[in-house]
Amino acid sequence: MFVEETAMTSFEPKNPDYAAAVAAIFAAQPAMSTLGITLARLAPGECELVLPFAAAMAQQNGFVHAGILTTTLDSACGMAAFSLMPAGANVLTVEFKVNLLAPAVGARFACRARVVKPGRTLTFCEAQAVALGAGDEKLVATMTATMMTLRDRRI
Amino acid sequence: MFVEETAMTSFEPKNPDYAAAVAAIFAAQPAMSTLGITLARLAPGECELVLPFAAAMAQQNGFVHAGILTTTLDSACGMAAFSLMPAGANVLTVEFKVNLLAPAVGARFACRARVVKPGRTLTFCEAQAVALGAGDEKLVATMTATMMTLRDRRI
Amino acid sequence: MFVEETAMTSFEPKNPDYAAAVAAIFAAQPAMSTLGITLARLAPGECELVLPFAAAMAQQNGFVHAGILTTTLDSACGMAAFSLMPAGANVLTVEFKVNLLAPAVGARFACRARVVKPGRTLTFCEAQAVALGAGDEKLVATMTATMMTLRDRRI
Amino acid sequence: MFVEETAMTSFEPKNPDYAAAVAAIFAAQPAMSTLGITLARLAPGECELVLPFAAAMAQQNGFVHAGILTTTLDSACGMAAFSLMPAGANVLTVEFKVNLLAPAVGARFACRARVVKPGRTLTFCEAQAVALGAGDEKLVATMTATMMTLRDRRI
Repeated sequence: MFVEETAMTSFEPKNPDYAAAVAAIFAAQPAMSTLGITLARLAPGECELVLPFAAAMAQQNGFVHAGILTTTLDSACGMAAFSLMPAGANVLTVEFKVNLLAPAVGARFACRARVVKPGRTLTFCEAQAVALGAGDEKLVATMTATMMTLRDRRI
Repeated sequence: MFVEETAMTSFEPKNPDYAAAVAAIFAAQPAMSTLGITLARLAPGECELVLPFAAAMAQQNGFVHAGILTTTLDSACGMAAFSLMPAGANVLTVEFKVNLLAPAVGARFACRARVVKPGRTLTFCEAQAVALGAGDEKLVATMTATMMTLRDRRI
Repeated sequence: MFVEETAMTSFEPKNPDYAAAVAAIFAAQPAMSTLGITLARLAPGECELVLPFAAAMAQQNGFVHAGILTTTLDSACGMAAFSLMPAGANVLTVEFKVNLLAPAVGARFACRARVVKPGRTLTFCEAQAVALGAGDEKLVATMTATMMTLRDRRI
Repeated sequence: MFVEETAMTSFEPKNPDYAAAVAAIFAAQPAMSTLGITLARLAPGECELVLPFAAAMAQQNGFVHAGILTTTLDSACGMAAFSLMPAGANVLTVEFKVNLLAPAVGARFACRARVVKPGRTLTFCEAQAVALGAGDEKLVATMTATMMTLRDRRI
């Protein structure tokens, strides 16, 4: 296979306490606990959030609403980007695009984000949502997102 | 001002009962009632949904989470597209892009979608989210979205 | 029709010589003259570029290649954004999304861009490409784009 | 590194003569030869095109215009998608988003596309543009794109 993935550089976090900073900003988002989203894994420039299925958040066919999956993907990208930001920063989403590839059928959805290109002001991230259940994972959606570093916590 | 808006064609709905069909598919989305989203206005190829602010759905700065705004924008686009689809169809989101232009601060958010280009298989929509409150409306986000017509209700 | 367009604020240019500055940066893009693209109209926050059809830039069906249309749309957005930037700035594209709505058939294509939300660092623009020829204009593509202000001309 | 890439399924081409079909549709795009773009590699669901730098296609800083890079990325995605389509089909771009990550400085640019999710009607692709020159490759842009299969060659 000749189309290789982006070389996965090991990112060096600017904030040695990045894990605590991410945990704090994640905990500060009420939407996460309301939706039952958990922080499953974290590394510099990478984050996995898990969304449980909830019938109350379904669309007309009983699948998870695309916007709720997007909520999880967006926060996963935000946390991945934030993990590489300096201490005292805040993170803001500039834009994202989501492609929906299969119905979001599953008991849980893992949203895995990684930083592709960190920058002083803008950080570019990619994420995938996969349905977890009995058997194999199934890719249901992808996101590409631009995140912004806010240095003075003002928005 | 020489940059004119897309000429707003009056769309002719294929389904004479489009309003009842939209009301039914909207009511069939549990995420709408869970989030308190209401169907404020409907016309062929156009839909306005209103999302009330809920602290439980905020991000780390107390603003509405971008994904919850996206949930509303996506459903508004879906309903606008669905209003032009034939009776018996179902609607599926293929992709959307959201640009976040200002913090989602407000008591309520009107998400206004319109069909730009309907098609047999794919329908292209645009939507805007504006914050409502004391005084003027404020544009907080935009969406462009591709919706797909499913003729046999299978997904 | 209740879905109104974004209120078109009259933008106040920061650079009183914005028209000369746009003309200069447009002339400094060799791709524009190579493709025969002309600056048809300009106002603060708005720009129209016109691309002539060229068989040498077609795709497999004889239509203008989507990327060549994108070249025109991107520059139109860049010029619209640049018209609101301070003197001495440079403009850089952060991202764009293009939706292709109809085959790009025509003798010329007008790409009309406008700033939706200017900002100190990021400016959000929308643009449309319409085919011109005998009879009515036909919408063939849309772009949404994020442009960045570079204050020191360095990239 | 726990964020794994999309499992790279080996795609089974529906058209046993897919390589000849891709070569033919690529050769039928005048924009490719005009810009000097070459088909560097092909496999089922994967395509690499190479764009040489040309000063005539630069933007105001002497870098390749984002739209010309997009032309290459779009065709790479189109060819990757087309390689999995049945004999007699045609391919059409529905939409793409491009994120520009670094100035397009280099002697040549490899645009590598792969199908993430093929479908009967819609195929989702990802692509990267890397600058080639002295030393390491440098990622300059990414694309996500939705391609459509046209079975009767009509557009």
